Amino acid sequence: MDKVRYGIIGVGNQGSTYVLKYFDGGMIVDGELTAVCDINPAKIENIKNNLKNISPAYFDNYITMLESGLCDAVLIETPHYDHPPIAIECMKRGIHVISEKPAGVYAKQVREMNAVAEKSDVLFAVMFNQRTNGRFRKMRQMIADGAIGDLQRVTWKITNWFRTQAYYDSGSWRATWEGEGGGVLINQCPHQLDLVSWIVGQQPKYVNGFCQYGKWHDIEVEDEVTAFFEYENGATGVFITSTGETPGTNRLEVSGTKGKLVFEKDHLWYYQNSVDSQEYCRTTTEGFKKPVCEEMEIEPDVNGTQHRGIINNFTAAILGKEELFVDGKEGIKGVELMNAIEYSGWKGGIRVELPVNEDDYIEELNKHRATSRLKKVAEQVTNTEGTY
Amino acid sequence: MDKVRYGIIGVGNQGSTYVLKYFDGGMIVDGELTAVCDINPAKIENIKNNLKNISPAYFDNYITMLESGLCDAVLIETPHYDHPPIAIECMKRGIHVISEKPAGVYAKQVREMNAVAEKSDVLFAVMFNQRTNGRFRKMRQMIADGAIGDLQRVTWKITNWFRTQAYYDSGSWRATWEGEGGGVLINQCPHQLDLVSWIVGQQPKYVNGFCQYGKWHDIEVEDEVTAFFEYENGATGVFITSTGETPGTNRLEVSGTKGKLVFEKDHLWYYQNSVDSQEYCRTTTEGFKKPVCEEMEIEPDVNGTQHRGIINNFTAAILGKEELFVDGKEGIKGVELMNAIEYSGWKGGIRVELPVNEDDYIEELNKHRATSRLKKVAEQVTNTEGTY
Repeated sequence: MDKVRYGIIGVGNQGSTYVLKYFDGGMIVDGELTAVCDINPAKIENIKNNLKNISPAYFDNYITMLESGLCDAVLIETPHYDHPPIAIECMKRGIHVISEKPAGVYAKQVREMNAVAEKSDVLFAVMFNQRTNGRFRKMRQMIADGAIGDLQRVTWKITNWFRTQAYYDSGSWRATWEGEGGGVLINQCPHQLDLVSWIVGQQPKYVNGFCQYGKWHDIEVEDEVTAFFEYENGATGVFITSTGETPGTNRLEVSGTKGKLVFEKDHLWYYQNSVDSQEYCRTTTEGFKKPVCEEMEIEPDVNGTQHRGIINNFTAAILGKEELFVDGKEGIKGVELMNAIEYSGWKGGIRVELPVNEDDYIEELNKHRATSRLKKVAEQVTNTEGTY
Repeated sequence: MDKVRYGIIGVGNQGSTYVLKYFDGGMIVDGELTAVCDINPAKIENIKNNLKNISPAYFDNYITMLESGLCDAVLIETPHYDHPPIAIECMKRGIHVISEKPAGVYAKQVREMNAVAEKSDVLFAVMFNQRTNGRFRKMRQMIADGAIGDLQRVTWKITNWFRTQAYYDSGSWRATWEGEGGGVLINQCPHQLDLVSWIVGQQPKYVNGFCQYGKWHDIEVEDEVTAFFEYENGATGVFITSTGETPGTNRLEVSGTKGKLVFEKDHLWYYQNSVDSQEYCRTTTEGFKKPVCEEMEIEPDVNGTQHRGIINNFTAAILGKEELFVDGKEGIKGVELMNAIEYSGWKGGIRVELPVNEDDYIEELNKHRATSRLKKVAEQVTNTEGTY
């Protein structure tokens, strides 16, 4: 094999961008798009009408596409609930698969997917394109190398996910328990809920989630969340998100005994203590002093290649040219964290230990699905460029 | 009267600074220090040995000082529990009084003090010196004038209160339930717990307080707090503080439908929306767009005169030359907020409505005082310049 033949399942907002911009634009190295699948004929029409350079086959049934022999690898761009079952169908057929984020709606389905992946020979990734961000990679590396010492605090305020009522009205599955299984946590925040543990190197052990449902929009799911985290070592954290505010803030601070890292607006600052602050605290005879601290801006080693980089790396990994950058099985971490926050929110903000019991979660989710009001609106395809 | 004669009660870290720097240094306009009181002879000695220009009378009993006829006004610089009872003794004798912050340890004693103040003719202030900060004053004014529209979110991360074990070991009353009635909330944060409502123009209605006791130091009270706020109009907030981290962060963000104000490191930025974001959300047909927003740095109208400014204003107010800047009766707001966070913390982070029932609070506080370990250490006086 010298070229990887891709199929794509689902060409809504995100999938159509991959098709029209990356594949039709010739931006995928050693990869070509050979098949496109969507159950909605209008979305297939949209692709047909806009392709300039390539001529994939079209399908309205993904199993038929998987069995056509046209695809070495597949991109799953469907609503969230369908990610794991479709990924499993790919894996069973020896087809490599990149799932859109999140890995799934609830941890049990993701764990089942991972079990199949574990036994399979195919490559499996989740579209965690923000892991390619050079500053996030640098933070992860520095923390792993001991730059901040023992973790003390994580705060991520990511409130720049402003969405309008028109956005929520653009798809019948949007912002419903039945269609998405959650709100801002599952649609906008899968990146941050993945990154927050990937960067820090540990997952919160307990969370309190304060979720507010339909606060800023006429929707049934949460459009604002504040969560309190506690880590195994006693460190704490706060995660704040909203789709109802603008201009929002996207600021991540990670503090430890040896220093602090602050990410905001394409800048990364490092505050390096001359000595460990806890050691200083215990040994100095001074009451009001603190360790000398040096402040510096950190430049990334690489520029983030985002979605395109993930697909190019995946292609190269299939061809044996690169290591796989994102192991899809790691997607369960973010789903577990999301489930814990959502579960706590449903229970009024109680302290929840991770991971939530999977059956308890499904039971509670199904209660919400049972009363869900799937909307009757015309599906629309929107250009999402620059929104994730 | 053309000069106000001040007495000071308590010349520990804070009181000795007022005496030696402001009064002995001639920095108080139209005010002179005529009396100094402390029950600790070593602290009186410290003052005597360091005064260069003035010669106050010395007392070891504050009632005797109040009845000496030497004082028109008094500064109370004692441990927190004693602020209200001493203030009441001043008021009863027609002596103007500035209490150090906080106004008290629990709301009931502050309410009793306020009731006496209400019936008295004396002027009464609390040392909210940070209210003189030009940027905080500007934020308060802009919010009152509608600059951010409807309040949506308040986040204040004030983790730059690093204190060493030596600090806590420097006084037997420090960081004990019996001696202080709390930790970082009552000792370091009274300013922020006052300002957060003074700036925003409203007090949180509910709080969840996650308090961690002796986490970074060998003390019995809280040295780290994360609190979640909910306001009457549905806005939410987060307040984070710690004495165990360095370098800390002091960043206040206040967001609303018309914009956002961000304060950090002696800068104030204003993000002004061209239209109200909630109106835009409801009326636009665009899914991913947001109102145009202009960013600008805001310069303060005045420079903060801090403690000296509070004393000078108080003096001028007594002499009929200025309006009183801080009405001491407003001190109860911060105490109510502090009590609610502390109470929630004692109860494992439950949601607490403000104000907490005063008798419930005292009952719970007294349980903690009953088991308090007042420390046996030599009292020390430390230069606190630049630490508040």
